This record gives sequence, structure tokens and C-alpha cells, in this order.
Amino acid sequence: MTSTLENSPTNSAYNALLAGCPTREVLNALSDKWVGLVVVSLADGALRYSEIARTVEGVSQKMLSQTLRSLERNGMITRTVTPSTPIRVDYELTALGAELLPILQAVKTFSEANIENIRDARVLYDLAN
Amino acid sequence: MTSTLENSPTNSAYNALLAGCPTREVLNALSDKWVGLVVVSLADGALRYSEIARTVEGVSQKMLSQTLRSLERNGMITRTVTPSTPIRVDYELTALGAELLPILQAVKTFSEANIENIRDARVLYDLAN
Repeated sequence: MTSTLENSPTNSAYNALLAGCPTREVLNALSDKWVGLVVVSLADGALRYSEIARTVEGVSQKMLSQTLRSLERNGMITRTVTPSTPIRVDYELTALGAELLPILQAVKTFSEANIENIRDARVLYDLAN
Repeated sequence: MTSTLENSPTNSAYNALLAGCPTREVLNALSDKWVGLVVVSLADGALRYSEIARTVEGVSQKMLSQTLRSLERNGMITRTVTPSTPIRVDYELTALGAELLPILQAVKTFSEANIENIRDARVLYDLAN
């Protein structure tokens, strides 16, 4: 836990704890397993659709298309079509997406680093409840 | 973007990009708007159920109960019952939950700081598509 990740209030007028705050919708769009994994898959630069599908193992074509559309619509990635044969489509993080990347990587890393603690907690919880 | 949030590989054997990885389930459990807001609401210490409900505006009783149960089961919060009249129930972040807190705060802060850019991106996308 470092200073950059601490409970620093934003300078913005928005607060997602408030019911009417429009950031809730953004929070919703970003709080998604596939969004996290797709953004992380683009960490090293642009990828084609098929490369993302290979990197984010097991994602269905439907979920991947939906996730990419949502990320593009929210300004996190660009979609570049090269009119070759076959047509080539590349996806790349925008500056905003690159800002989001380390945060979603941190969620992923946290999950991976703590999966065993979390499994233990679940066993205890299920025994007691 | 600081070094602590960068693409640092974990020492763990787990990788959520792999289809069979058990961390996917954790990632799913943590990637939830209400989980984020409830964890953030506990940043300053233990709160009673009713206090969380007030802080996370607009959360339904059903969603809040479900979110608290999920967070408790995954070892992120403790639930303490004080047998007073009326019974008092407090929720508090565990050490693990406290480790998750700054990450989910970062997602919230990102959403709040960039909502206007995101809205602009949406308008452009919707015009073009």
C-alpha cells in the first residue's frame, strides 16, 4: 500500500457514493472481470481481435465483442481497421485506458496473490454458516 | 501511474488470463460496483449495517446484504454481532480487505476524475456507430 493508492479525495465534483452520481455507471462498466482481463491483455501494445481472444483464455466471442465495444465506447481503447485481405482489426489502449491499466492490473495481481487466503476464508465461512 | 501499480508479475503460480485459473472467480467477486463502494465506505473503520446503507446511497437492502455476505465469505470484512438491545452488527475491513481498499478506491477515483472524458468519448462513439 503506497501513497498513490491511498484514500485521496479527488478534486472532482463527483462522488460515486452518491446515488445520483453519473460515475456509478462508469464504475459499473469498469467493474467487470472481462473488462479487467481485456485491458490487461493490451498492456504491451495493440493486439488483433484473435490475439486478444487467445490471451484472455476462454472468453466467448460474444463477451469479447461486447467488452471491446464497451471499452471503445468509454474511450479506453481504439479500434483500427486495416483494409487488407482479410481485413485486419487492431485494438489499443488510449491514454485514458493506459491510466486505467495499472489499477486493473492491481485487482488482478491482488486476486492472484491472495487466492489461497481467500479460499481459506471461504472454507471457514461455509463451515460456520 | 507509479511503480507500485505497474505491470509487475506476481510471484504466484496463478494467472487470471488462464481459463482454468481459480482466481477468475475471485476477480469476478471483486469486480462489482457494490463491492467497490461498500469496501470504500469502510475506509475509516467499522460501520453498522445502517451506516453503510446510508453511506452507499441507493443500495437496496438485498444488494447490500448480498455484498456484505460475499465480502465476509471472501475474507475481506468481519461481521461482529453485539448482543445489545437492539442487536448491533458491525462490519470492518480485515487486513486483506485493507489491502484491497486502495485498489478499489483507485477505480472509484479514476471514474470520478475521468467521467467527463468518458462522457465525451461516448457521445463521439454513439455519433459514429
